[in-house]
Amino acid sequence: MTSEAASHLPRHGRRQMHLGAFLLESGHHVAAWRHPDVPPRAGLDLALYQRLAREAEAACLDAIFLADSVATESGPGAERLSRSTRFEPLTLLSALAAGTSRIGLVSTVTTSYNEPYTVARQLLSLDHLSAGRVGWNLVTSDNANEAGNFGRDAHLAHGDRYARAREFLEVVQGLWDSWDDDALLDDRAAGLYYSPDQRHTLDHAGAQFRVRGPLNVPRSPQGQPVIAQAGASEPGLQLAAASAELVFTAQPTRERAQAFYADLKSRAQAQGRSRDALKILPGAYVVVAPTRAEAEDRQAQLQSLVHRDTALGLLSRMIGNIDLRGLDWDAPLPELPLTDSGQRSRQQLLTRLGQEDGLTLGQLAMKIAGGRGHLSVIGSVSEVADVLQDWFEHGAADGFNLMPPLLPTGFEAITRLLVPELQRRGLFRTRYEGSTLREHLGLARPASRYPTATLAKESA
Amino acid sequence: MTSEAASHLPRHGRRQMHLGAFLLESGHHVAAWRHPDVPPRAGLDLALYQRLAREAEAACLDAIFLADSVATESGPGAERLSRSTRFEPLTLLSALAAGTSRIGLVSTVTTSYNEPYTVARQLLSLDHLSAGRVGWNLVTSDNANEAGNFGRDAHLAHGDRYARAREFLEVVQGLWDSWDDDALLDDRAAGLYYSPDQRHTLDHAGAQFRVRGPLNVPRSPQGQPVIAQAGASEPGLQLAAASAELVFTAQPTRERAQAFYADLKSRAQAQGRSRDALKILPGAYVVVAPTRAEAEDRQAQLQSLVHRDTALGLLSRMIGNIDLRGLDWDAPLPELPLTDSGQRSRQQLLTRLGQEDGLTLGQLAMKIAGGRGHLSVIGSVSEVADVLQDWFEHGAADGFNLMPPLLPTGFEAITRLLVPELQRRGLFRTRYEGSTLREHLGLARPASRYPTATLAKESA
Repeated sequence: MTSEAASHLPRHGRRQMHLGAFLLESGHHVAAWRHPDVPPRAGLDLALYQRLAREAEAACLDAIFLADSVATESGPGAERLSRSTRFEPLTLLSALAAGTSRIGLVSTVTTSYNEPYTVARQLLSLDHLSAGRVGWNLVTSDNANEAGNFGRDAHLAHGDRYARAREFLEVVQGLWDSWDDDALLDDRAAGLYYSPDQRHTLDHAGAQFRVRGPLNVPRSPQGQPVIAQAGASEPGLQLAAASAELVFTAQPTRERAQAFYADLKSRAQAQGRSRDALKILPGAYVVVAPTRAEAEDRQAQLQSLVHRDTALGLLSRMIGNIDLRGLDWDAPLPELPLTDSGQRSRQQLLTRLGQEDGLTLGQLAMKIAGGRGHLSVIGSVSEVADVLQDWFEHGAADGFNLMPPLLPTGFEAITRLLVPELQRRGLFRTRYEGSTLREHLGLARPASRYPTATLAKESA
Repeated sequence: MTSEAASHLPRHGRRQMHLGAFLLESGHHVAAWRHPDVPPRAGLDLALYQRLAREAEAACLDAIFLADSVATESGPGAERLSRSTRFEPLTLLSALAAGTSRIGLVSTVTTSYNEPYTVARQLLSLDHLSAGRVGWNLVTSDNANEAGNFGRDAHLAHGDRYARAREFLEVVQGLWDSWDDDALLDDRAAGLYYSPDQRHTLDHAGAQFRVRGPLNVPRSPQGQPVIAQAGASEPGLQLAAASAELVFTAQPTRERAQAFYADLKSRAQAQGRSRDALKILPGAYVVVAPTRAEAEDRQAQLQSLVHRDTALGLLSRMIGNIDLRGLDWDAPLPELPLTDSGQRSRQQLLTRLGQEDGLTLGQLAMKIAGGRGHLSVIGSVSEVADVLQDWFEHGAADGFNLMPPLLPTGFEAITRLLVPELQRRGLFRTRYEGSTLREHLGLARPASRYPTATLAKESA
């Protein structure tokens, strides 16, 4: 088998966007669950997710993407959040794999409180169940609630989390090559199920892990599952530049997105990688409707459902679990200490956002109630398409991780109004040209690290 | 909600069997994969598993059951085994949950190399995906290959494994009660998603684990997933008597099965439990055909496909990874040292089996190539039904975990020939009377441990 990337670049010659559907239980707006369009207990409604996955596939999106946390929400206002309970993403995506055939399935899985053998195995099993449609959003765990569920008083320090993450990834990718592509002979006459020379024992022994192998799942239909990454701190960027194939990022303005894009692509090149080997998809909170007025009405309706405690609680969690309840809702955001807990890069982004625009605490809290600091686009079909096209054509993005405000209607507005407009403009595919996630993304199929695999290929 | 167990006892007044489908990739016979009926790479064939799950559901079986190992097979003859690669069971069962609505889904998950928060969460997520059809076969890991994949040179000593298993189960069941049944209010008008008083923080701190909670998945549709157990050693039996609701066991003769059944039911009673709170299902390797001659032909055909290395390798693994290659195939089985590795109870069973019947090494190896020491029944429909009925009616079993020799045909012979015969005899249900696994098994819905749940129930 040779690399299939080239054959899956758009045939009409025009560079096209990659679009993900970032699905959060009720929708991305923090008050979405109170909206009449959203079914009850949406985070545990398999039929809803099946509907969304089929919708994403009918729109030819690259993938659906699930976030994750290994703790429930807590702190002020938690009882006003629908995110407190939801499906675990690997089990949910496995259920969705069964009823779909093309849509990519990207799951967040933490490296902080798992074992690499188990993660390698579950992701690769899902990759086989879905015939090569899996991506892994590799994260580190950053909150104290998560630490407490795994025998720790606090999470690891920021640098240690990434040291563990790097070695974790190295082990997982090593285990994924345990079997050459053609190792399973199924030679019934000779009674030989596999070729022993084409099965490999990793024997990893590093600072963080000792893992022998081999894995008990054969190589992926797409070579290896796609590696996604979302950390924007310095060690996060280093990891992304070295290893990520898909990068999710929160960028509120085109200028910041361009700087991020240029920096990360250069870092990847500096590592000897092709700029195309890494696709950068900023999140985009999109409220789209036939007219701008209708879109603004819809957003206003959602904003009117936000309880003040909910908005403050969300902001508090996003800037590192700093309790904001004593502060004045109508006063400017004060200087906050940079914390090691929470997502460090998001904390900086939001603090800057509040300070640069001279927002009060309340204004900042309400501003992020939808997109949490991501690009936020509220408008008519052509207005939203214009913004995405502008970013895409000016070095700010390879596509977008679309964040519907509420489910399912907010997502259906995207797939039924926005996507057809992007297709009319030639910016997005009108049919799948491949079947694996790697093929959708135009990523090369990685060769195995073992020479027996190469030899087998050459002689085939 | 009150206990639903009583309403799901058979309405016609006759005690009925519980039947599980124990599905191993190509089938239970060690050479099944060489048989023309078995599709290639059966352990990674989702369509095959979907067909089997629908078949099991059409036959009204209680559950399908998946074994597991957190290592690939190794040692002499491993390359002749199809068990070297297969789906990870939680991802596979999640995929099967989507296309079925009644069949129970029982997964093996080890307590030795996992974290209780993660296991609690994935099982409970699957339980929601399947609307209450999940069982957990709690095991300890007993082989050196598994230990090496998780940073250990050897697995834990037998007693330590069970100490960990007991506390692991305690934590998992505690986390499963994190939310009262009616904690999720979805009160849109008040903006309150859940009732804070009905969410519980476990705060477990024991010798093995410290786990804070709460879990981020709400309570199960069936109260809690069903606990299954298969260990037959002394600590295994103690754990089963105290906690198991479903027990799988390997019993080669009715007499041994009766002794096991009487002992375990008494042990459960001694713990203050009802004898009916625990269902004992011996494994039954079943080769069934319209006539005895056809069944024997089928078994002979499978036996003819066994390579001597495969049979010896399987026996070696089952008796504790003792290398048997230097021994004489045609001489009696010698005395073997009792080992801490491997499944200790199975080692004793097989050694005894060989010695009591005066078998040579080769005869013993070939004898277990199908059922691995379980009850083995090869015969016509009425002959097989007679044996199962005899065990069921004479205090040896509450039903059986059926082990088809090869897939899918060996399983379809069971569902299409044997099950209808058991139904004709009134020994098995002809339709599902409930929808959850607990209801199929006639097990009570466990109440939450928290008083807020009780109060809520009483006032409801």
